[in-house]
Amino acid sequence: MTTTRREHDLLGDRDVPADAYWGIHTLRATENFPITGMPISAYPHLIDALAAVKEAAALANEELGLLAPEKARAIVTACQEIRRGELHEQFVVDVIQGGAGTSTNMNANEVVANRALELLGRAKGEYTYVHPNEDVNLSQSTNDVYPTAVKIATVFAVRGLLKAMAVLQDSFAGKSVQFRDVLKMGRTQLQDAVPMTLGQEFSAFAVMIEEDRSRLAEAVELIHEINLGATAIGTGINAPSGYAEAARRHLSAITGLPLVTAANLVEATQDCGAFVQMSGVLKRIAVKLSKSCNDLRLLSSGPRAGLGEINLPPVQAGSSIMPGKVNPVIPEVVNQVAFEVIGNDVAITMAAEAGQLQLNAFEPIILHSLSESVTHLERACLTLAERCVDGITANTERLRASVENSIGLVTALNPHIGYTAATEIAKEALATGRGVAELVLEKGLLPAGTLTALLRPEIIAGSGAPAA
Amino acid sequence: MTTTRREHDLLGDRDVPADAYWGIHTLRATENFPITGMPISAYPHLIDALAAVKEAAALANEELGLLAPEKARAIVTACQEIRRGELHEQFVVDVIQGGAGTSTNMNANEVVANRALELLGRAKGEYTYVHPNEDVNLSQSTNDVYPTAVKIATVFAVRGLLKAMAVLQDSFAGKSVQFRDVLKMGRTQLQDAVPMTLGQEFSAFAVMIEEDRSRLAEAVELIHEINLGATAIGTGINAPSGYAEAARRHLSAITGLPLVTAANLVEATQDCGAFVQMSGVLKRIAVKLSKSCNDLRLLSSGPRAGLGEINLPPVQAGSSIMPGKVNPVIPEVVNQVAFEVIGNDVAITMAAEAGQLQLNAFEPIILHSLSESVTHLERACLTLAERCVDGITANTERLRASVENSIGLVTALNPHIGYTAATEIAKEALATGRGVAELVLEKGLLPAGTLTALLRPEIIAGSGAPAA
Amino acid sequence: MTTTRREHDLLGDRDVPADAYWGIHTLRATENFPITGMPISAYPHLIDALAAVKEAAALANEELGLLAPEKARAIVTACQEIRRGELHEQFVVDVIQGGAGTSTNMNANEVVANRALELLGRAKGEYTYVHPNEDVNLSQSTNDVYPTAVKIATVFAVRGLLKAMAVLQDSFAGKSVQFRDVLKMGRTQLQDAVPMTLGQEFSAFAVMIEEDRSRLAEAVELIHEINLGATAIGTGINAPSGYAEAARRHLSAITGLPLVTAANLVEATQDCGAFVQMSGVLKRIAVKLSKSCNDLRLLSSGPRAGLGEINLPPVQAGSSIMPGKVNPVIPEVVNQVAFEVIGNDVAITMAAEAGQLQLNAFEPIILHSLSESVTHLERACLTLAERCVDGITANTERLRASVENSIGLVTALNPHIGYTAATEIAKEALATGRGVAELVLEKGLLPAGTLTALLRPEIIAGSGAPAA
Amino acid sequence: MTTTRREHDLLGDRDVPADAYWGIHTLRATENFPITGMPISAYPHLIDALAAVKEAAALANEELGLLAPEKARAIVTACQEIRRGELHEQFVVDVIQGGAGTSTNMNANEVVANRALELLGRAKGEYTYVHPNEDVNLSQSTNDVYPTAVKIATVFAVRGLLKAMAVLQDSFAGKSVQFRDVLKMGRTQLQDAVPMTLGQEFSAFAVMIEEDRSRLAEAVELIHEINLGATAIGTGINAPSGYAEAARRHLSAITGLPLVTAANLVEATQDCGAFVQMSGVLKRIAVKLSKSCNDLRLLSSGPRAGLGEINLPPVQAGSSIMPGKVNPVIPEVVNQVAFEVIGNDVAITMAAEAGQLQLNAFEPIILHSLSESVTHLERACLTLAERCVDGITANTERLRASVENSIGLVTALNPHIGYTAATEIAKEALATGRGVAELVLEKGLLPAGTLTALLRPEIIAGSGAPAA
Repeated sequence: MTTTRREHDLLGDRDVPADAYWGIHTLRATENFPITGMPISAYPHLIDALAAVKEAAALANEELGLLAPEKARAIVTACQEIRRGELHEQFVVDVIQGGAGTSTNMNANEVVANRALELLGRAKGEYTYVHPNEDVNLSQSTNDVYPTAVKIATVFAVRGLLKAMAVLQDSFAGKSVQFRDVLKMGRTQLQDAVPMTLGQEFSAFAVMIEEDRSRLAEAVELIHEINLGATAIGTGINAPSGYAEAARRHLSAITGLPLVTAANLVEATQDCGAFVQMSGVLKRIAVKLSKSCNDLRLLSSGPRAGLGEINLPPVQAGSSIMPGKVNPVIPEVVNQVAFEVIGNDVAITMAAEAGQLQLNAFEPIILHSLSESVTHLERACLTLAERCVDGITANTERLRASVENSIGLVTALNPHIGYTAATEIAKEALATGRGVAELVLEKGLLPAGTLTALLRPEIIAGSGAPAA
Repeated sequence: MTTTRREHDLLGDRDVPADAYWGIHTLRATENFPITGMPISAYPHLIDALAAVKEAAALANEELGLLAPEKARAIVTACQEIRRGELHEQFVVDVIQGGAGTSTNMNANEVVANRALELLGRAKGEYTYVHPNEDVNLSQSTNDVYPTAVKIATVFAVRGLLKAMAVLQDSFAGKSVQFRDVLKMGRTQLQDAVPMTLGQEFSAFAVMIEEDRSRLAEAVELIHEINLGATAIGTGINAPSGYAEAARRHLSAITGLPLVTAANLVEATQDCGAFVQMSGVLKRIAVKLSKSCNDLRLLSSGPRAGLGEINLPPVQAGSSIMPGKVNPVIPEVVNQVAFEVIGNDVAITMAAEAGQLQLNAFEPIILHSLSESVTHLERACLTLAERCVDGITANTERLRASVENSIGLVTALNPHIGYTAATEIAKEALATGRGVAELVLEKGLLPAGTLTALLRPEIIAGSGAPAA
Repeated sequence: MTTTRREHDLLGDRDVPADAYWGIHTLRATENFPITGMPISAYPHLIDALAAVKEAAALANEELGLLAPEKARAIVTACQEIRRGELHEQFVVDVIQGGAGTSTNMNANEVVANRALELLGRAKGEYTYVHPNEDVNLSQSTNDVYPTAVKIATVFAVRGLLKAMAVLQDSFAGKSVQFRDVLKMGRTQLQDAVPMTLGQEFSAFAVMIEEDRSRLAEAVELIHEINLGATAIGTGINAPSGYAEAARRHLSAITGLPLVTAANLVEATQDCGAFVQMSGVLKRIAVKLSKSCNDLRLLSSGPRAGLGEINLPPVQAGSSIMPGKVNPVIPEVVNQVAFEVIGNDVAITMAAEAGQLQLNAFEPIILHSLSESVTHLERACLTLAERCVDGITANTERLRASVENSIGLVTALNPHIGYTAATEIAKEALATGRGVAELVLEKGLLPAGTLTALLRPEIIAGSGAPAA
Repeated sequence: MTTTRREHDLLGDRDVPADAYWGIHTLRATENFPITGMPISAYPHLIDALAAVKEAAALANEELGLLAPEKARAIVTACQEIRRGELHEQFVVDVIQGGAGTSTNMNANEVVANRALELLGRAKGEYTYVHPNEDVNLSQSTNDVYPTAVKIATVFAVRGLLKAMAVLQDSFAGKSVQFRDVLKMGRTQLQDAVPMTLGQEFSAFAVMIEEDRSRLAEAVELIHEINLGATAIGTGINAPSGYAEAARRHLSAITGLPLVTAANLVEATQDCGAFVQMSGVLKRIAVKLSKSCNDLRLLSSGPRAGLGEINLPPVQAGSSIMPGKVNPVIPEVVNQVAFEVIGNDVAITMAAEAGQLQLNAFEPIILHSLSESVTHLERACLTLAERCVDGITANTERLRASVENSIGLVTALNPHIGYTAATEIAKEALATGRGVAELVLEKGLLPAGTLTALLRPEIIAGSGAPAA
């Protein structure tokens, strides 16, 4: 019993495993790109999106009379199976690959063709009945299929990230309510500034996430523009009149997305700007997340020789040598994801800049980096929310004491005694260790009643914006 | 005759030049930050924006009864003079400075105060009559003044860039019309692909710029949100009720910009996300410009041993040793600006990520990098349009010959003879140097008449999207 | 029959699978860091290096009388098994993790302890006999174990890269010999310059790799400096006198590496400079590889409308739509690895900069990015050598014709007719399409015999440096 | 009286100011590159290096009989004047320019030629007597002159940086001695770890700088390799036999540098690897400086609600609104320079990667970014040393109290009571606020005398490495 079948291409004959749904093009690609060991099936959204594109193309081709209904039906069924999560393990080419996604597209063409053959009662490899290029890829080119699939995959991946960000925003917002009455010193440039509430501090974290969600939602809109129908370079060669519109319509129906076809397909086929912008927004999110985690680590520093303002929930022992030590490992892992995302943005930038003439050959690394950034950010947000923020507690007494002991209170007296006099009070307080109020009274700068009213920390903190 | 005046601050007394409008805080800052030698006056939009903020604050303070009308009038007049371009040389602190912009703000406070003193008939330094902190900076903090001014300055700088991009877009679009009938081979992965027109190629350049203009216009909308009234950390300490709204209203009137006050001032005061996003869009523009310039250099390579498709206008001798050599120096300088902008984006990203707690102390490098990116991109776009694109000519005959000689024409036969047969034709054409048409006829794959109709390059190229 | 065992730590009790060699600390870590799904076993060099460190520590502890010989023997045997490739699948924590490597170190402590227990005839989890912290981690801290292991792992990984680079260098050098007599036009700024040989061009590729190998070999020297014995922060707490030296000696013997202990352990424990520098050198390699691949793609552009100077061996069909198209997919995949490495350098830079006080908590992402860069570069070099460079052929006739037709030949006449006259000749040649020699003769600038001698391309090209 | 003179080039005639030493090529370049407004004279080391190269070339040409002694003498004298700092204002082309440095080289050729003409009693512009290309640029090309000059300029600039780093190292080392007996808590992951001395902390800063100085000194060695004599593409066209060696010898003598000629000039002419590596080392320095400044800002946070371990000397008032506030502005400005250097490294990386075939056209941005990085780092190091580190004081009492109050002391008991028991003690201390010693005694885990001996902080801290 044979365990292989023979296939043929431009370069000659090769044997592929008899039970493989992929064929000779995929075989060569796996040999040519032994880079990461990570197959494209690591990105299920991409596989689903490829299947959706192949399905939409088959329906459009059938509609335009280019593809026999029986073939079309088999292809569509194969694609639907893939979109249900089947056959994903047949997508085996490396995530980093040469060739602008050709190997990914051919992997899809071959898997769909062979599954369609089976559905038609044929053996795998009997391509005269359903051909990977002539049927499954009909009216298509890698150069319109691949970017379209990458965009759809990104839209779905970003949805997951948006949800995770909403979870994290809720966690921060919950804490901002819980801590709304906890007075503390605000700091600028790490130096004591003026009073605020811990609720305001956590509200700022929540609002940062909220704004970033808005920016991400805007950026994802931009990638609903596709170039399906452009074929090789945007001139639409081999795609009949009406195909682009029919394929777009079917693809919108299949995915449920309001896709639009780019006005200028030559431009759309070579342009990676939308991915650069998407990555830029992911970088923005990473920057803000990292800043928030830096703050959480700083505010929870201690337990005794640090700021000790808040306590992060312990999730594991912190040290192999220092007993009882608990470290802020969850914010730390989020920081590291942020650094990765920022690095990925540089890789994406370079890949986009390296496009030449009618195509960018480096879209696979763009897909890989973008997918990694989106996926890891999603997991980082959920982890941060569930394993850290939700369990944060405040050291209320310590915080209040730091406000009452503070020199920054003097700022509130500026309108009453002037910046110059206030500066002298601050200097003396710092030098002597005495309190601001006592010095103001001693110098007779303000009557005691006025002073007490002005220095109520609740008033000082409360004069600002309320927690959102 | 004395040539200095004595001023006093927290740290003691210092003599400043008698004719300087800046004072002791500025003096110390110039000594503390001897980094680049480039004063902040290098960014006129920033100086104007600072003056606008000071003017708006004075009007708001007057309106709220905090500032005597006479003082307010003097401050406003001083600010208007600055906005007319006067006194810019008095803004002397280094563009890279510690302190979240405090030195820039104090430089402004001192210049405005001393000019206001003059207008009131007082000597410079007589701060009991108009005080830099107590009057000019009244109800303000560096932490709301500086980011607000940076945003306004960026809005105005970006307007210049948008105009320059429109000029470049028009240049490319003009060429796309001029070259609309020039047939050429399209290329993917630097390999011959299928025919297109040179007009389509230039149209893609134009559309790329157009899309980037849209993205930039969207990004600039986001920086109309300001935090004036937040004062030190966003709680609005020392700013009376009604001040934030009054100051915003006056600032909108002065600048003509539809400014809005951030809903959460604590968040807005510490968040640099809008600058990160703006830089990300500038990076996107840089990536696309660089790609376009790479293409222009490649298409004009030669004159004899290159692609030689187009000719860039000669603007200077290209070589100190090779006579007659003319190089693509204009695209080259644009490439370099693009690399700088991409590097600046990393600097901005790091600075934004490094913010801590209630403030980002590193806004000066953000301003510096952002201003450099915007300004250099503006000049690069204008230079590219005027000194290069407008003068480009096409080598029409050479281009047409390359199409007629091309193997890629076989792609158009896919729907008629199939991918597999077409592949064999292509292989044989490549191996033998023979033409596609002659081989198809020889093998009897298609009748001559059909073939001629299918292989008309105009048809092939024309099947794509029209030039925008 | 129970399938779990109960373990205890600072946070309470947890059940772990009975057959797992890892324990409660590892369990919590896998729950805390669900980021990439890639376990640390993906880096076999790291696992081996961890085992080597644990083995060296056990031997040192035994030597110093801190560890009973029987326990030491069991630990050493367990470590040797791991270094032989066994139990690697037990190293399950995520490659991106919080905590400066603590989870990786605890994973190692637990696996070694449980395997040692088995060797001693005990059940897994009977830590009173061999304890992960008190025995396996004795005299150690994550903060010296982890960076030491990362350095050793990197040394071994880099060896693989150095070998792959040598293979690639040989490929290029082989071609430089093969093409030593193939004349061609050299180009600067993509414009025709002066003649050279294709051998010189490939020799430059070979020399670039050779220089980078030297730089990499130098950089790897710098990471032979370890901080074992530093324990928690470099003060050596809990490590007895003599331990650091004994552990270093054993570790050198086990690994065969000339390791040295850092002179200042406090500094060495917090400093990630060596990793930044290593990554910088990897980035240099990436830049040069990418430049070389850009050149290969450009020189092989065509087949008819490109430079067409060389032919890359076809390794797969290039297009799903364009029959017969073969693309430079191998150089393209190398370009993409280069972009990834350059992005990783930014991630490493940010992680290194984010270290605080006595430790850098972000070493896991440094390890991850560095390992990825080294491994992918190694595979890229081998792939490029074997699947591309070795099979390159030259289009000798086309190349010679381009030289003979060239205007750049006029440069050779500078010393004889002057730059100014030569410029006029070049201008006229370009405008008229005529040859340089014929114009020089026509104008009587040089006698025919002299001219012929001066313009022999072999002479012109040969005057430069020989192929290395 | 005429105020202009007419000059001629490939493109036609232009009038240049009569008193300008630069000529038509420079004029066109200033019009073509209106990018930054910063002329190359901003880099005096580059101007000096260009003059040194021109001088060396003239001497070599004279020696080889190619240049008349009188002309050579005039050229040499002109170059010497420039190297004395004269005529620098005549170097007017923009620092960002197209053309691989051609405009910079032609600016030098023209200034030297016109000054030489004056010295010979001729009028500026009488190029028949001394010609910018035929005499001053004799045997040279931009492509060997410019990279050679950039390397020499970088060597001299780096010397300044090395000195500044030595100053900073001394400052840190001085503090490490001053603080050698100041006990404090060490921290890992911002959590209290184990005791150390403040002297050890500052010693680590000093050693970091010291190591970076070594790495920088190594990197600067690599840029002593030059390609003078390569001319256009490395084949040495137009440079006679013996020229490369003679020019190198003269250049070494003039500069005092042990320059060597690259073995493979074709490779050396296109390779920017040495600049990438230099920038990578500058980035390493930036990372470490930034980390040290982050620590200084953190340790000096307060004055009351921060760590408050050390005091930075006040150098200016910190706030326009908060009286008496003093901020860590000097470390902050150093952080920002570090971010700029890291951004510049990305720009340099992209420029180096973009080189094509026999030349990198983007060396001007490499020079610009590298010069900026070196110069700003030098100023940052000096500023940090003189305006910050030298004036740092310690809050000794507060530091000692934090040690005595610390839970981290329990780590020292590991070898005596075991990690498990020590963990229980730590947990209880944290929960109850009680001291480690009192709990150990209460539980009878160790006798009082032993405990006292073990917990002496001096012993704990002292067990580590001494301050360097």
